[in-house]
Amino acid sequence: MRFLHTADWHIGRKLAGYDLLADQQAIFDQLVNVAKAQQVDAIVVAGDLYDRALPNEAAVTLVNQMLLTLNREIGLPTLVISGNHDSAVRLGTGRDWFKSTDLFMNTQLDQAFAPVILGNTQFFLLPYFEPFAARSYFDDDQLTNINLAMQPVIDKMVAAFDPTMKHVLVGHFFAAGSEHSDSETLVNVGGLDAVAVSDLAPFDYVALGHLHNRHALNAEKIQYAGSLLKFSVSEANQEKGVYIVDTDTMTREFVALPPTHDVVHLTASFAELTDPAYYQNLKRDAYIAVTLTDRQVIPNVMSQLREIYPQIVSLDRKNGVEVVQPLETVNADLDPMTLLSDFFEQSTGAGLTDQQCKWAQSTLTQAKEVD
Amino acid sequence: MRFLHTADWHIGRKLAGYDLLADQQAIFDQLVNVAKAQQVDAIVVAGDLYDRALPNEAAVTLVNQMLLTLNREIGLPTLVISGNHDSAVRLGTGRDWFKSTDLFMNTQLDQAFAPVILGNTQFFLLPYFEPFAARSYFDDDQLTNINLAMQPVIDKMVAAFDPTMKHVLVGHFFAAGSEHSDSETLVNVGGLDAVAVSDLAPFDYVALGHLHNRHALNAEKIQYAGSLLKFSVSEANQEKGVYIVDTDTMTREFVALPPTHDVVHLTASFAELTDPAYYQNLKRDAYIAVTLTDRQVIPNVMSQLREIYPQIVSLDRKNGVEVVQPLETVNADLDPMTLLSDFFEQSTGAGLTDQQCKWAQSTLTQAKEVD
Repeated sequence: MRFLHTADWHIGRKLAGYDLLADQQAIFDQLVNVAKAQQVDAIVVAGDLYDRALPNEAAVTLVNQMLLTLNREIGLPTLVISGNHDSAVRLGTGRDWFKSTDLFMNTQLDQAFAPVILGNTQFFLLPYFEPFAARSYFDDDQLTNINLAMQPVIDKMVAAFDPTMKHVLVGHFFAAGSEHSDSETLVNVGGLDAVAVSDLAPFDYVALGHLHNRHALNAEKIQYAGSLLKFSVSEANQEKGVYIVDTDTMTREFVALPPTHDVVHLTASFAELTDPAYYQNLKRDAYIAVTLTDRQVIPNVMSQLREIYPQIVSLDRKNGVEVVQPLETVNADLDPMTLLSDFFEQSTGAGLTDQQCKWAQSTLTQAKEVD
Repeated sequence: MRFLHTADWHIGRKLAGYDLLADQQAIFDQLVNVAKAQQVDAIVVAGDLYDRALPNEAAVTLVNQMLLTLNREIGLPTLVISGNHDSAVRLGTGRDWFKSTDLFMNTQLDQAFAPVILGNTQFFLLPYFEPFAARSYFDDDQLTNINLAMQPVIDKMVAAFDPTMKHVLVGHFFAAGSEHSDSETLVNVGGLDAVAVSDLAPFDYVALGHLHNRHALNAEKIQYAGSLLKFSVSEANQEKGVYIVDTDTMTREFVALPPTHDVVHLTASFAELTDPAYYQNLKRDAYIAVTLTDRQVIPNVMSQLREIYPQIVSLDRKNGVEVVQPLETVNADLDPMTLLSDFFEQSTGAGLTDQQCKWAQSTLTQAKEVD
């Protein structure tokens, strides 16, 4: 059988104050098209459907609609676990009814040991859990970290293996280390808070969520889906999408999903950025991080750039700002308040607030009195 | 057929700071026993399952468990609408799956016009809605209040009536007026924010939620279920419970549900209240409102009473407090601060906080300096 592996939707997340809900809806529509075109037999969502435990109503509406679309409208078995950003209780609402249409939603550790069987495959749906949940479930005080806690979890799953079937683990945790469990490596990349990849060897495939970079782990049978959207400028060069996994051949294929508004990092001079020859072929409605190569002060730099690039998410300088005019040659026509607010805007990319203006005025007045 | 009519669970509500969750669980267990003993064919919950739109996880856990118990464990068709305290979006999560086991959950106006048919009866499940929802749904700007908005709602339901069946409306609104629609009466009891009971005449029974006193409306075919618990001292004398409605005979029977901890209003002197002969037959773990008949100052009155009645929700005086000692005969052994804090405690039923003590000390010091 073939399934689509996705994770880390983080519905309700914002990027530098911009609401991503419409982008999240649009990328999900693409995911649905891929599921149809690839004729998959099931959908796997490996946690963090929501960005927060207490999502707002718009986010709840969208996630409800997404699950409805996958499971009821295109009618696919849908296998979901909660991630660390989800509230297990809230996401689990309706769980006992969802099974009626093969929507399997696990949000508690004790639900993870009865596999969901689809085609030739046993799926073990392991929600995000804290070590204390394992201590309680296994009545074992020794399970003080996630690496230790995962041992009895996997043992119990292996005990439920049907040897005639394939075995897929769906999880939401930090997996690390080489395939051969080099403990030094493990310590280096996260220590006891990480699950050693060698412990995951019993499974034919491990469909993970948690890390937003799908290349975060390079392992033959273990794959992070990555997030559906870029959630920070540091992800600007990551390609986002979903995996299509074939459990007959145990191979996987990545399908990229281009976003409505990309996250782009532009490093250029102000003159370049404002030159139509430079920007006419750019998607200027992207979420854009700007790194200016100029060193000189540029008045109203942010508002000038926003006229061309309406969704700037950050502005910094590659080489710092040069004070081009020594103090003794300051333009005497400009009053101290104007100089200060220009400097502030060029340094921070934002204008002074009313309150900041008042503080500055009052301080300048005091300084003048001391003069 | 016979159904159990309940409403206004308000799960998550507190009473004077006391968490009612355990009491709510216990009264619900009684409701389940009544449903079993009465062999009803369905459960009707007429809104306000939650006390707030954003309930905490403990409240979500309990409501989820309550619906699971009614619909899956005792296996009854369960008909639910959202009330004004519920979030329609959050309560509606899972709705499309609930129908698989005859859990019908309506949280939006447009869902109200397709009746649920059980036995000989059409049930119209009308969630709480604002007039703007009706203006939008009917594309009619004239529907500026709930009384006007209800007209097309009822007309549309009547158009769906099967004349061979009984017709039950489940609603969550303020109904008022006499059976003969005396408009003066209507204006007196709430005006345009109320639905005239005469407009509800097409239905064989109207199962309402919203008002917590089941006697709030006295009408032949319209009934408030009332809340399951007393949520304020003003409800101390109300009997709480559920209705069992028979749609063959269109008769209803009230079944009282005694709470684990009653809300009781005691009016007595301090001497009586602290006399074992008085309290030995009282359920002292009730939520108790105390009205003292004494007029004299009683030191540490609240802490003394709480030793006998651990859950006091309010304390007041029937006849005020008498200053028994004229100022000139004040016990000179007591310093002003002690006098003040005694007086404060006797007046308010609570001691001074640390901050209040500081304010008092500082003011008394200033007063002394003026002397």
